[in-house]
Amino acid sequence: MAAVRALVASRLLASSAFAPLHACTPRAPLHSSAPRPGARVALVLSGCGVYDGTELHEASAVLVHLSRGGAEVQIFAPDIPQMHVVDHAKGQPSESETRNVLTESARIARGKITDLARLSAANHDAAIFPGGFGAAKNFLCCIAPVLAARVLRGVEVTVGHEQEEGGKWPYAGTAEAIKALGAKHCAKGVTEAHVDQKNKVVTTPAFMCETELHHIHDGIGAMVKKVLELCGK
Amino acid sequence: MAAVRALVASRLLASSAFAPLHACTPRAPLHSSAPRPGARVALVLSGCGVYDGTELHEASAVLVHLSRGGAEVQIFAPDIPQMHVVDHAKGQPSESETRNVLTESARIARGKITDLARLSAANHDAAIFPGGFGAAKNFLCCIAPVLAARVLRGVEVTVGHEQEEGGKWPYAGTAEAIKALGAKHCAKGVTEAHVDQKNKVVTTPAFMCETELHHIHDGIGAMVKKVLELCGK
Repeated sequence: MAAVRALVASRLLASSAFAPLHACTPRAPLHSSAPRPGARVALVLSGCGVYDGTELHEASAVLVHLSRGGAEVQIFAPDIPQMHVVDHAKGQPSESETRNVLTESARIARGKITDLARLSAANHDAAIFPGGFGAAKNFLCCIAPVLAARVLRGVEVTVGHEQEEGGKWPYAGTAEAIKALGAKHCAKGVTEAHVDQKNKVVTTPAFMCETELHHIHDGIGAMVKKVLELCGK
Repeated sequence: MAAVRALVASRLLASSAFAPLHACTPRAPLHSSAPRPGARVALVLSGCGVYDGTELHEASAVLVHLSRGGAEVQIFAPDIPQMHVVDHAKGQPSESETRNVLTESARIARGKITDLARLSAANHDAAIFPGGFGAAKNFLCCIAPVLAARVLRGVEVTVGHEQEEGGKWPYAGTAEAIKALGAKHCAKGVTEAHVDQKNKVVTTPAFMCETELHHIHDGIGAMVKKVLELCGK
């Protein structure tokens, strides 16, 4: 269990996992001359901060690229206590504190956030799960993206390269762990995204790679573009 | 005082204020064939979350654009208690909580953060202050960017347009308040930045405009580009 949790954690630390919903069917064209509506995307957060919540730069990049792509975004988070609170300056748990996942996620959402319990797949064309340890720590019992690797037999995902390459890919071992879960790992660069057409899952390495932030931003842009293409919008 | 504070708050809520340091002198070319070093930029944070800290999407956009521009960035925050903690889901103060500005800012910095008390102007070509109420609430006694409007007589800044235009510029009244402080307001669009060449201050409206996130991201990109140009790097 610890190993799985560690896997999920490092998996989610850096790769902006994405899982389109089964409701990814194009809508009928409008009869009016109004612009065609954008893809309806659910962004699912798990707190605010890489070590106990959502990696906020990944979430922000997702939102920038969805905005640029004309998507309609609704932001969700579970209304539950965080598994724990990490002092990000010290890099260690803050034992005396408790925080709520929805409340902290609202910092990324600028207050416009909905309880995850109210998310209905029928209302969205896709869902995006940014990385961060919170996705593992706070979602493990419900919707942790790693479940895709278990539920979707043979799903294809990327967490970047499979060798450390002198520290450029410090979590390279994660690829082996993903294979051990029955999924297929596809090596990709940090500015690339991998599309599993069959399962409609798009992934990008993001912070799995030790690199400059704009490359991560661009990789998330590639992921969002593929997502919107899959949605046919 | 309340009016000034409100001014600072709305001023900083949305516009990524920027104040280059006086140390903005080009460094001597290197004798080696190594690439010329980038501009040395201090990013000054005031917490993590628009209503009691730094507006994190503005901070993230600043970091993406600085990364793309090849700048060397060091992130700072004051090691002091936050003025208060706001529950961002409810939009109201969380009375029983206390948080530290440095500790919360570390969520944006992914742990790599330095006490603001250790910032020395000699070590940086420029400093960037992203928006968010925290900049007003937590900096007011020390380095609130609004001080620029007081210290730098006649400084030119932009917070966007000067009319509400049907809700597109909900904080348009801020321009008048800026003028009342003796500064000059220069109307700009959300994707633009204004450069005060004399005072070396660059500003962009950012979240002063009710618009899509990618326009705000692009406006911050314009601001960072002008900053790096001013630094001659």
